[in-house]
Amino acid sequence: MSKRQIKLGAFLSPTGHHAAAWRHPDTNPAGATDFEHFRKLAQLAEAAKFDAIFTADSDGLWRGTGDRTLRAKSGHSAGSSFEPITLYSALSAVTRNIGFVATASTTYNEPWHIARKFASLDLLSGGRAAWNVVTSGNANAAYNFGLGGHPEHADRYRRAEEFVEVVKGLWDSWEDDAHVYDKASGIYTDPDKLHELNHVGEYFNVKGPLSVPRSPQGHPVIVQAGASEPGRELAAKTAEAIFAAWQTLEDAQAFYRDVKNRAANKYGRNPDHIKILPGVYPVIGRTEQEALDKKEQLRQLIDPEIGLSLLASLGGSDALRDYDLDGPVPQDLPETNNNKSRQRLLLDLAAREQLTIRQLYEWVAGARGHRVIHGTPDSIADQLEEWFVSEAADGFNLLAPTYPGGLVDFIDLVVPILRHRGLFRTEYEAATLRGNLGLAIPENRHTAARHARRSA
Amino acid sequence: MSKRQIKLGAFLSPTGHHAAAWRHPDTNPAGATDFEHFRKLAQLAEAAKFDAIFTADSDGLWRGTGDRTLRAKSGHSAGSSFEPITLYSALSAVTRNIGFVATASTTYNEPWHIARKFASLDLLSGGRAAWNVVTSGNANAAYNFGLGGHPEHADRYRRAEEFVEVVKGLWDSWEDDAHVYDKASGIYTDPDKLHELNHVGEYFNVKGPLSVPRSPQGHPVIVQAGASEPGRELAAKTAEAIFAAWQTLEDAQAFYRDVKNRAANKYGRNPDHIKILPGVYPVIGRTEQEALDKKEQLRQLIDPEIGLSLLASLGGSDALRDYDLDGPVPQDLPETNNNKSRQRLLLDLAAREQLTIRQLYEWVAGARGHRVIHGTPDSIADQLEEWFVSEAADGFNLLAPTYPGGLVDFIDLVVPILRHRGLFRTEYEAATLRGNLGLAIPENRHTAARHARRSA
Repeated sequence: MSKRQIKLGAFLSPTGHHAAAWRHPDTNPAGATDFEHFRKLAQLAEAAKFDAIFTADSDGLWRGTGDRTLRAKSGHSAGSSFEPITLYSALSAVTRNIGFVATASTTYNEPWHIARKFASLDLLSGGRAAWNVVTSGNANAAYNFGLGGHPEHADRYRRAEEFVEVVKGLWDSWEDDAHVYDKASGIYTDPDKLHELNHVGEYFNVKGPLSVPRSPQGHPVIVQAGASEPGRELAAKTAEAIFAAWQTLEDAQAFYRDVKNRAANKYGRNPDHIKILPGVYPVIGRTEQEALDKKEQLRQLIDPEIGLSLLASLGGSDALRDYDLDGPVPQDLPETNNNKSRQRLLLDLAAREQLTIRQLYEWVAGARGHRVIHGTPDSIADQLEEWFVSEAADGFNLLAPTYPGGLVDFIDLVVPILRHRGLFRTEYEAATLRGNLGLAIPENRHTAARHARRSA
Repeated sequence: MSKRQIKLGAFLSPTGHHAAAWRHPDTNPAGATDFEHFRKLAQLAEAAKFDAIFTADSDGLWRGTGDRTLRAKSGHSAGSSFEPITLYSALSAVTRNIGFVATASTTYNEPWHIARKFASLDLLSGGRAAWNVVTSGNANAAYNFGLGGHPEHADRYRRAEEFVEVVKGLWDSWEDDAHVYDKASGIYTDPDKLHELNHVGEYFNVKGPLSVPRSPQGHPVIVQAGASEPGRELAAKTAEAIFAAWQTLEDAQAFYRDVKNRAANKYGRNPDHIKILPGVYPVIGRTEQEALDKKEQLRQLIDPEIGLSLLASLGGSDALRDYDLDGPVPQDLPETNNNKSRQRLLLDLAAREQLTIRQLYEWVAGARGHRVIHGTPDSIADQLEEWFVSEAADGFNLLAPTYPGGLVDFIDLVVPILRHRGLFRTEYEAATLRGNLGLAIPENRHTAARHARRSA
């Protein structure tokens, strides 16, 4: 049994995760729509033996709600870029080992289309696809699908659970040896190994079979991110990798234990088959001073109008406009209707750390709730190792402040240290994402049933 | 003004268009799910300077209705392969000039998803995407989307028309110069050049804007195939390329005139901006005898059970089971309910050509209604030139009997003759599909409106 090692994902964003990354002198502000930019990022991550690259997604464009100038300045976060499954399909042709985690919502899609597109990407890439299952929290999307309003949280999760069930059923339409290809007899398929699903449920009626056979990894890997109660349940039941956001070791450990215990005790799953990958936002310098300088450089690029708009969840975009940016964050703001927990989190943080308004938006402009790790390469490696060995994480999803610069820093300065400590691979273990993450290949349900009948 | 030249598309299918192609000794029966196979086909067609490759699509798997053996033998036509937009996205990364015509149905999709995926492919490929707009004639698909039955023909076409209108509207969300990218001032977009659609119609309410900017060709090319009355109307109104199936020069000329006249007179369009590309099924030999031998080789590979199943539209899969395969096609079969025109076409053909049952299914097994061109390379070139110069075609969509063999034959033997006659390009004229097809770039509607306001 080989030593447990850190799994690494690179959470790509066109110019970087800092809100002002696009204004940094080293970034390409047009990267969002430049395939060569993404090809370079994917090939960098692959050369460094990352497990996967990851992208977020939304079925609506975020436009901001402020005035003309604010909209002009916040356009970088609008999300105008490639659709993830098409982008990853293109990247699959110019890479060999790295995995592709594509976000796709269960709220405004049909299981047939999602099952088919991920199965196709998985087959095209030789078994490197993963689906980050989300529900759309963004009401902007609703208006692109002829709906007057946005479905409730609980309703979205019930739909998501059934959606995943249908998709996994469709992925088992073809048993692995369903194709016969016997030119002499004219037999192309074994009809006993091609199966209809005939799902009839609360949200979906889907007959099948799917028109795409299984890939070398059986099913695309199922990824999830939600930390709410229904999010944890769905993750414990179906997720194989979890992208979490935790600030403290204790919170991360509690989440890690909770999800792995639920998976084992409630759903009879092997807890090693769920990889928990908290997000980390690394600011790396050859010296402490260089790391501080890098942080300062991005800090100075935050436009105050953008900064205040990042605090809109405190009570609307204008809530703080009449306060002194360098004074304390007021604690007596009226409670918001639609993002209570986010408002609470920010107010508590500001009180605990005694932050000014400017300091609070600078905090949000960086890691956006993810853990900031900051310092020299050795210190960064220490911070990762601590969480890894204390069962707070099986690996990390890296949110670089800028791309490609922040990723290159991590690869050049931190990865060699992790390798030296035996914490990260020097070569891929497998050609599939499942193989590299150490996840089992799900046996086709119909093949399993046949085996069970035979041994009964 | 340069001389008018033939436009060429290669209609790919995994092993070829002949029903027995997968049993041919030269084909790879697993090609349907082998990306390298498609990469080779795309690169062959690109090296020969074809305008585009084309694939069909369905949102349901065709499974046949016969017994176990028949289903085993007809599995090759089930359609288990890559989803076209993912396949083309992957191919876009390993090609530079060839266009990609992806079929996608308006019946079981949402305009947002189709607009977004084609826009993304168009941007990834640098302006080489085309959307073949179809309505789903296949009731199998309905059962994958929770619907009890299949919508009526007229209803499907009304939905298709509105669907295309919404998609084109979404493609104009961003004006071409909407991105400013000014790092110094922090201005990323010009908010006056990003537009909501706010479509409210019979089938769709879609707010927009789309999250993908325009590509170098403005919009993906709109392709259509229907020859019915509503199909012709939709084509005259919106199509920029038409894939048609005609047997005789006269029928093809009449269709060509009809669609171009409707486009010009009813919709005020430039008839040169609709390219009509009938399907042709070429059987090519260095000598007439070699062409006959090739035809015979495939003919002998047709399993009689498969052959009879291809005539199911004459009255169900068992309608002809008690007749002598080498006797005449009976003309007194009961009229079918759901494919009257196809039944009539086959019975008329059998009567006119005095075909036996075996000869009729052999005809269907080959070109499936498309024009068969057969003979030496010079004769093939003559047959193409005749239709091209007599305004029956602006080019052709090639249905090779086998892949890659049939495509290689055409490229090696026929393309040089077309070039020698000045009928086909020696180099691409442009980097975009629109540029190679000689189609205009549609001006963004909002930019056009601003220009109109200024000059008013």
